[in-house]
Amino acid sequence: MNEAPRDEHPTTTRRGFSRRALLGTGAGALAVGAGLGVAGPPAVAALQDTLGDRAPDDVVDFHGEHQAGIVTPAQDRLCFASLNVLTQDRDELIGLLKDWTAACRRITQGLDVTETGFDGGSEYAPPQDTGEAHDLSAAHLTVTVGFGRSLFQDSSGRDRFGLKSRLPEGLVELPHFPGDKLEDARTGGDLCIQACADDPQVAVHAVHNLIRMGFGVVSTRWMQLGFGRTSSTSTEQATPRNLFGFKDGTANLKAEDASAIQDHVWVTDDSWLRGGTYLVARRIRMILETWDRESLTGQEKIIGRTKGSGAPLSGGEEFTPVDLGMMGSGNQPIVPEDSHVRLAHPDTNDGVQMLRRGYNYADGTDTVGNMDVGLFFIAMVKDPATGFVPIQKKLARQDALSEYLRHTGSGLFAVPPGVSQDAADYLGRPLFEA
Amino acid sequence: MNEAPRDEHPTTTRRGFSRRALLGTGAGALAVGAGLGVAGPPAVAALQDTLGDRAPDDVVDFHGEHQAGIVTPAQDRLCFASLNVLTQDRDELIGLLKDWTAACRRITQGLDVTETGFDGGSEYAPPQDTGEAHDLSAAHLTVTVGFGRSLFQDSSGRDRFGLKSRLPEGLVELPHFPGDKLEDARTGGDLCIQACADDPQVAVHAVHNLIRMGFGVVSTRWMQLGFGRTSSTSTEQATPRNLFGFKDGTANLKAEDASAIQDHVWVTDDSWLRGGTYLVARRIRMILETWDRESLTGQEKIIGRTKGSGAPLSGGEEFTPVDLGMMGSGNQPIVPEDSHVRLAHPDTNDGVQMLRRGYNYADGTDTVGNMDVGLFFIAMVKDPATGFVPIQKKLARQDALSEYLRHTGSGLFAVPPGVSQDAADYLGRPLFEA
Repeated sequence: MNEAPRDEHPTTTRRGFSRRALLGTGAGALAVGAGLGVAGPPAVAALQDTLGDRAPDDVVDFHGEHQAGIVTPAQDRLCFASLNVLTQDRDELIGLLKDWTAACRRITQGLDVTETGFDGGSEYAPPQDTGEAHDLSAAHLTVTVGFGRSLFQDSSGRDRFGLKSRLPEGLVELPHFPGDKLEDARTGGDLCIQACADDPQVAVHAVHNLIRMGFGVVSTRWMQLGFGRTSSTSTEQATPRNLFGFKDGTANLKAEDASAIQDHVWVTDDSWLRGGTYLVARRIRMILETWDRESLTGQEKIIGRTKGSGAPLSGGEEFTPVDLGMMGSGNQPIVPEDSHVRLAHPDTNDGVQMLRRGYNYADGTDTVGNMDVGLFFIAMVKDPATGFVPIQKKLARQDALSEYLRHTGSGLFAVPPGVSQDAADYLGRPLFEA
Repeated sequence: MNEAPRDEHPTTTRRGFSRRALLGTGAGALAVGAGLGVAGPPAVAALQDTLGDRAPDDVVDFHGEHQAGIVTPAQDRLCFASLNVLTQDRDELIGLLKDWTAACRRITQGLDVTETGFDGGSEYAPPQDTGEAHDLSAAHLTVTVGFGRSLFQDSSGRDRFGLKSRLPEGLVELPHFPGDKLEDARTGGDLCIQACADDPQVAVHAVHNLIRMGFGVVSTRWMQLGFGRTSSTSTEQATPRNLFGFKDGTANLKAEDASAIQDHVWVTDDSWLRGGTYLVARRIRMILETWDRESLTGQEKIIGRTKGSGAPLSGGEEFTPVDLGMMGSGNQPIVPEDSHVRLAHPDTNDGVQMLRRGYNYADGTDTVGNMDVGLFFIAMVKDPATGFVPIQKKLARQDALSEYLRHTGSGLFAVPPGVSQDAADYLGRPLFEA
């Protein structure tokens, strides 16, 4: 063993301070902790005052015109949950969204869920924070919440919370796509929580605690961990690889391209969803056992890019635009007609683009010993009816890659706009307060 | 969005160079890449010569008296696989172990599985490396291989590979423990691979490629991802928390305590297993829905430590020795009789200690919507018959914590000693070559 001892959780503590220090349980942190020792829920301003200029650079602001976790540079890890709403009481649902908002304001700063955390409350009550992230910093945590179609009306069309008239146009029932093998237990849901962070423990803690706070009001429908981001959402990020070994998301929308984000991501109509977006989730199993036996040339023709550099088969470097018209031997296009890059290209899709934010997943093996691994696809789109459904129909039918994919889960959620620093604001307020 | 753009994969690329650079596909790396351009499998010496003093500090040496991944400071992420051996041909099995050894020598240095990786081989052949870690550095990757009892004899006692007479004494059939809910599909196996790294993509890549290399020779029985280590194995590491929110592994054996490691981990008899150990794996589901409603005091009495600092209830700081004899009010021991700390303490277990190396896992939800999350327990022990079975029997029967746990998977593997730098050496050689 010749390796040097490593830092503890290098991604999350090397730059930040921990919940522990802030809560004053760490030696020398009493002065900081004292600032949080007031009774009642802290106002946002007080919180920020406490953090002050000590705010570490691994905090993503929860507040803003839009929710964080959309154009935020994609963090490395994901915990995603889809929930059923159990209550029939609109006020209880609103109450939970308010509680979640208060919690998110804290945990996204690396704090415990509530001011008293788990060791400052009554010893006879359950801890208010489950504790597994207590020593960790914010790790760029973002929590993004969305509303499923079934929140607005149940399958028989019944209005559940007086929201039916506010069902957004884009929150359609996704059609069955060719080859779909959707499992009920991985599909749909009334609410979704997307927690992204550099540290998976921080992301899991976020989802775990929001679920816990909703005990009796919501139940978990499905949950998905993602271990490696498969898209860049910023020009500052290198392009990662998916489990087929190819760079993924080279042509993804980037946060820096403000006009494209405006055109393809944010809802701009005058509805309550203005400033929000739609989140499409697809659990796409990748059949590695078959893919891995495909030749290098075969794999590259299916994708339309080289495996090494990620350059399009029409030449150049990774970011060289694909030349769909370039012809090769036998008067066949160099970028094959059924290649993924061609079929997904904006030029063959009426200019449609999405902001992809997916993650690799590995969930063990299936009953016959094949690996249940793949891509948990997430895309943020302005309008699923034009921005997702047509392209997915085409890919499912024509894409040579589809032979190696199996869609096993699916969800579509309307993502409300962001929350302001006003302590009275909460997730989804524009939906509930006309 | 006020966060600064982040580095790509901060844990793995900030300190290291990537496979890309080494293979000469990165600009300016041609001189380095050229050194790997010779035909045939590279000798270990040549490899090391190529790496030379440029070897980054995130490489753990694969070679040594013992396999790496045992006393190596526990990395943050795990990919574990249990495999069935399909072949009946002893030489084919040995051939695979040789191939694995050659691959591990490379991937633990941040290199592709073979010299030609995926973009240097024949374009008409499947790539030799599946590619998903191509741009990533070694990330402290360790690959540790073990042999299950069923490799030596099948369930009817039949000798499979002429190894029956070499079945190590400690490789017992684990008994049924009270409360076990073991699932066949998560239990047992002929071989195991434990891949640990700071980057999950690197760990998954390792397992994926070893499985791929074994196509037709082995099949995957089960696979488990772990996202956060739950034990420290070095005094240089802070104690992490499990999903119950408690610090876990405070009293774990530490690599620095050489005599304790010698006493409790390494096999020291004169068998082929000398210098090896036994790996006990238990998939322990944690019933968070119940635990999270337990009071702080209740949780602390069950564990026997405070939730905040991890100090024993008998007082002091995290690393203060537990005083099991201290009495409190009502002449009851302060550290309760049924607390986890008391029942697992060496003083109540004939001095038994194990080197724990477990990970948190989160595998979604079960069919009724409860989270399938918990601890993938891994312990390295000198002798399971004395070092694991008795203590687990006791814990399963008496530990107040057991009410919140469900053991759903199990495995026991003999971990052969390490591999030397001799190119002819391979994993398990002492077993096959008497």
